[in-house]
Amino acid sequence: MRIIGIDPGFAIVGYGVVEYAGGRFTTVDYGAIRTATSLSFEQRLLEIHNDLGSLLDEYRPEIMSLEKIFFTTNQKTAIDVAQARGVISLCGITRSIKIAEFTPLQVKQAVTGYGKATKRQIQEMTARILALEAVPRPDDAADALAVAICCAHTNLSLLKR
Amino acid sequence: MRIIGIDPGFAIVGYGVVEYAGGRFTTVDYGAIRTATSLSFEQRLLEIHNDLGSLLDEYRPEIMSLEKIFFTTNQKTAIDVAQARGVISLCGITRSIKIAEFTPLQVKQAVTGYGKATKRQIQEMTARILALEAVPRPDDAADALAVAICCAHTNLSLLKR
Repeated sequence: MRIIGIDPGFAIVGYGVVEYAGGRFTTVDYGAIRTATSLSFEQRLLEIHNDLGSLLDEYRPEIMSLEKIFFTTNQKTAIDVAQARGVISLCGITRSIKIAEFTPLQVKQAVTGYGKATKRQIQEMTARILALEAVPRPDDAADALAVAICCAHTNLSLLKR
Repeated sequence: MRIIGIDPGFAIVGYGVVEYAGGRFTTVDYGAIRTATSLSFEQRLLEIHNDLGSLLDEYRPEIMSLEKIFFTTNQKTAIDVAQARGVISLCGITRSIKIAEFTPLQVKQAVTGYGKATKRQIQEMTARILALEAVPRPDDAADALAVAICCAHTNLSLLKR
């Protein structure tokens, strides 16, 4: 099962592609799409649409895993991240990729087994689970890999029921 | 100048297409895209993308005019409307349609000349400005026509400077 985890944003979109089979992960690719601040907001959406589309066409994941958006103190940012997230979901659905979403708590529990884990602990467990030599950079890519792991583990637990 | 006004949403997207030339409006079309509650959220985004895309291809507006999203008491709804709005903007930008956005206050002032106008007053003035026999239905279409009028008037005032 090939999963792409996404950490949505409009300035930077983290992504992480993993293959999960027989309880083992293979890391296919990870990184971040960055959009220039000189672009209009809509041009940034277009760039995300095009760049993510290319990644999806290259890696052909079966599932796209995303974190649910929660409100932060900065409501303007939350609205703009949500707009980008709509475009990101659209990129998946137009390619018949299944969309899965998880709360930050679900991601923490799936990756570390502990709902109060720190961001750093999640990143270190992500690196360990994927047998990476170091914590993936940037943070957005590490977060994306974590939500991909969460999806794989959750799916497995669903199959077990 | 042909303008499409949009009232963004994920269950219902109001639209209104007007032609504005020599200080006069012609109403080209208005209505609403509705998505079935039985669909997944992502499928609803896809339906909006496809249906709005068809409208844009048919009417070929030069400008897409949208209201800015403000936070309501229902944050979950605001996030989902924002996700749909991202998809709506994308539909425009992929067709090189210019995106314009206005605050609710700007729309009120442009349509009624009065920042404290009620929703009903805006709708009645919208009908009068467009020489329609009755207030357009549904409300979402009326709101979309109002934001198209706002864009036309604002543009004119920019040209005057």
